[in-house]
Amino acid sequence: MKSEIIAVGSEMLTPHRQDTNSLYLTEKLNAIGVIVAFKTIVGDRRNDLIGAVKTALSRTDILILMGGLGPTEDDLTREAVAEALSLSLRRDATQVAALHARAATWRISMPQNNLKQADVLEGATVLPNPNGSAPGQWLDVTFSGYRKLIMLLPGPPHECTPLFDAECLPRLHSIVPPRNIAVRTLKAAMIPESQADKLLAPIYSPYTDIETTLLAHTGDLQISLICSKPTAEAAEARVNELAERIEDALADWFYSSQGDTLEQIVLYYLGLRQATLAVAESCTGGLIAQRITSVPGASRSFLGGAVVYSDPLKTTFASVPPDLIAKYGAVSAEVAKALAEGIRVRTGATIGLGVTGIAGPTGATDSKPVGLVYIAVSDAQGTDSIDRTFRGDRQRVREWSAQFALDIVRRRLM
Amino acid sequence: MKSEIIAVGSEMLTPHRQDTNSLYLTEKLNAIGVIVAFKTIVGDRRNDLIGAVKTALSRTDILILMGGLGPTEDDLTREAVAEALSLSLRRDATQVAALHARAATWRISMPQNNLKQADVLEGATVLPNPNGSAPGQWLDVTFSGYRKLIMLLPGPPHECTPLFDAECLPRLHSIVPPRNIAVRTLKAAMIPESQADKLLAPIYSPYTDIETTLLAHTGDLQISLICSKPTAEAAEARVNELAERIEDALADWFYSSQGDTLEQIVLYYLGLRQATLAVAESCTGGLIAQRITSVPGASRSFLGGAVVYSDPLKTTFASVPPDLIAKYGAVSAEVAKALAEGIRVRTGATIGLGVTGIAGPTGATDSKPVGLVYIAVSDAQGTDSIDRTFRGDRQRVREWSAQFALDIVRRRLM
Repeated sequence: MKSEIIAVGSEMLTPHRQDTNSLYLTEKLNAIGVIVAFKTIVGDRRNDLIGAVKTALSRTDILILMGGLGPTEDDLTREAVAEALSLSLRRDATQVAALHARAATWRISMPQNNLKQADVLEGATVLPNPNGSAPGQWLDVTFSGYRKLIMLLPGPPHECTPLFDAECLPRLHSIVPPRNIAVRTLKAAMIPESQADKLLAPIYSPYTDIETTLLAHTGDLQISLICSKPTAEAAEARVNELAERIEDALADWFYSSQGDTLEQIVLYYLGLRQATLAVAESCTGGLIAQRITSVPGASRSFLGGAVVYSDPLKTTFASVPPDLIAKYGAVSAEVAKALAEGIRVRTGATIGLGVTGIAGPTGATDSKPVGLVYIAVSDAQGTDSIDRTFRGDRQRVREWSAQFALDIVRRRLM
Repeated sequence: MKSEIIAVGSEMLTPHRQDTNSLYLTEKLNAIGVIVAFKTIVGDRRNDLIGAVKTALSRTDILILMGGLGPTEDDLTREAVAEALSLSLRRDATQVAALHARAATWRISMPQNNLKQADVLEGATVLPNPNGSAPGQWLDVTFSGYRKLIMLLPGPPHECTPLFDAECLPRLHSIVPPRNIAVRTLKAAMIPESQADKLLAPIYSPYTDIETTLLAHTGDLQISLICSKPTAEAAEARVNELAERIEDALADWFYSSQGDTLEQIVLYYLGLRQATLAVAESCTGGLIAQRITSVPGASRSFLGGAVVYSDPLKTTFASVPPDLIAKYGAVSAEVAKALAEGIRVRTGATIGLGVTGIAGPTGATDSKPVGLVYIAVSDAQGTDSIDRTFRGDRQRVREWSAQFALDIVRRRLM
């Protein structure tokens, strides 16, 4: 069954606020086999909201509205749903009493407009909201000849999500045909996006019963598989089959079948090999160390390193000979190798990583463009350097460089 | 004029991803007087997308589509807009050449499916995308008797937002009726959120003609002011008046009236004082260095530093005596001060910063809880340490620590 989530509220159409409830709801809906096909954000404008409700009902089976249930003039969700479905609203005596009782508990006088929160749609079930004054509502109606399930939920997350869990999920569960879902998140590093699709589309396309999503971001590819079957075993077996074929095809680009981050995998292999790592970063300026140390327990395998931003620090912390820098330039294979070897020796780490490049926007020369990065790895067997030229602004070059460097360490460990 | 933003991509209908481009675009659109009336998120399903385009055109004047312009089978935005508006698509020879040139630069062979990125809608203007392979498109068409402006933008933020700024905003500006808008972004560091609102609400509330938004995130407070007046001078004067009152109230929490980041301000003051900075980070693991080096030109004042994650490295790189660590523990005021002073002396920087703490989830002791952080600053006048205990998970503690440390350097420089 297809669903749409509508977040109601002009504040979510400003540059500073975003709907986050829907992430939680999406996870819960997916887990019982309900697809979220659309998310819509609409302001507190009566006609816009009525239109959005009608549009949603014309394209999905399940409509979840969040927000616009409060006491102010801007709270229009009840009225808009009533109008869109030609339903009446009645003031519910039980809810009126509950609002009075709530005001009494809080020892505040209740403004008259508060009572609109007691207005209930014709045929709706009232959903108690222990964390706020406006209850939710559940409608099971026929619209243009089709059955539609409609939920009105309060907007504040601490009201919305518990109410959804307690009142909506069990009802949905009893209506939505039971599905057993298997999900898998595969990860790969440094494969070009277009190449990934060319390689993988012929593999996953025949699996029309598995929803496959490719998501690429700065050298990190995430492949999500979702499969729904009558039994959990069948779903799991089906996802396993496709996952294995994708892993094989990705070969050494592939690094995780559990959705791990690249830094988690690097730390995993360091632990497995009883190896330690230290880094000497120039253009990435601490980004690599920061990614590694974001993982709890990183200290078991990661010793630390140096941010050798100025040339003298390359000597101070990674023993790079000043005449090497003078001869080849700070951005060179020679200096990258000296950084990797120097930081390894200085820290006593098993593996040393050295990164030097031109992140931009300035610093380029005729022979060395912005985006040029040298990455070197050093261990007891030797020291190797590799270079790449990344496109994009300073942030992009730094992110690509960090990703590439971590991937080189991963490959060295495998 | 009313607009709708449609973010295209199944990944944004998962529990793990959210559209963020629209926040940036909303800010820019609001600044030229365009209201964002709807935001829609739709997956990579052909019919859903066609329907969303038609719905948007029936309710708004300006439609901005983001995403779905890539080379894969899932990239359907061009086709969907063509179908919704009954327009043809033509393969543009210039764009085909550009794609070949791009592939040649990257020294990769170009898969045939890449060429669909050269498909241009009938009547559309091609918008160059210097940061990616798929260009944007601009359509100025009549739909059901009304003029509609339609923009197709790439999804990745580093492609989407520069393209929007360079190509779409100037075109919109020449079409949308002129409004005179003044905007201001004030920044403050480390003021508690509830205190900020209590302090500032009595100041900004009387300015009902200025839209004021407070946004707090990990010790960083952003106050946005937007004011629309018949003349630019009137709008500017009004915003200036409120901005000055807010600055006064924020006192030394305040750090920028131009929306700068804290790291930009730290670098600004370092330059002004002709001072240099070096950092020795333990629990922040490179986060501070990474934030500072994200600013172009950071190398003028930032020498670098050390990520002294293991105890021996605190000695190797920041000359911390091992018996000091043995006596007080690695997380202590004494070690923080030794780190700050050690890194200053070792690097020759004017100012040394030392950070040591327990980011969690493990590492706490009876007397030292998770979240406890010592931050020390050292200069020729002496070395001071201050501690705080931050709440939250590992990531939060690290982010709060980095923010607090940068703010301490800022205060030292003022």
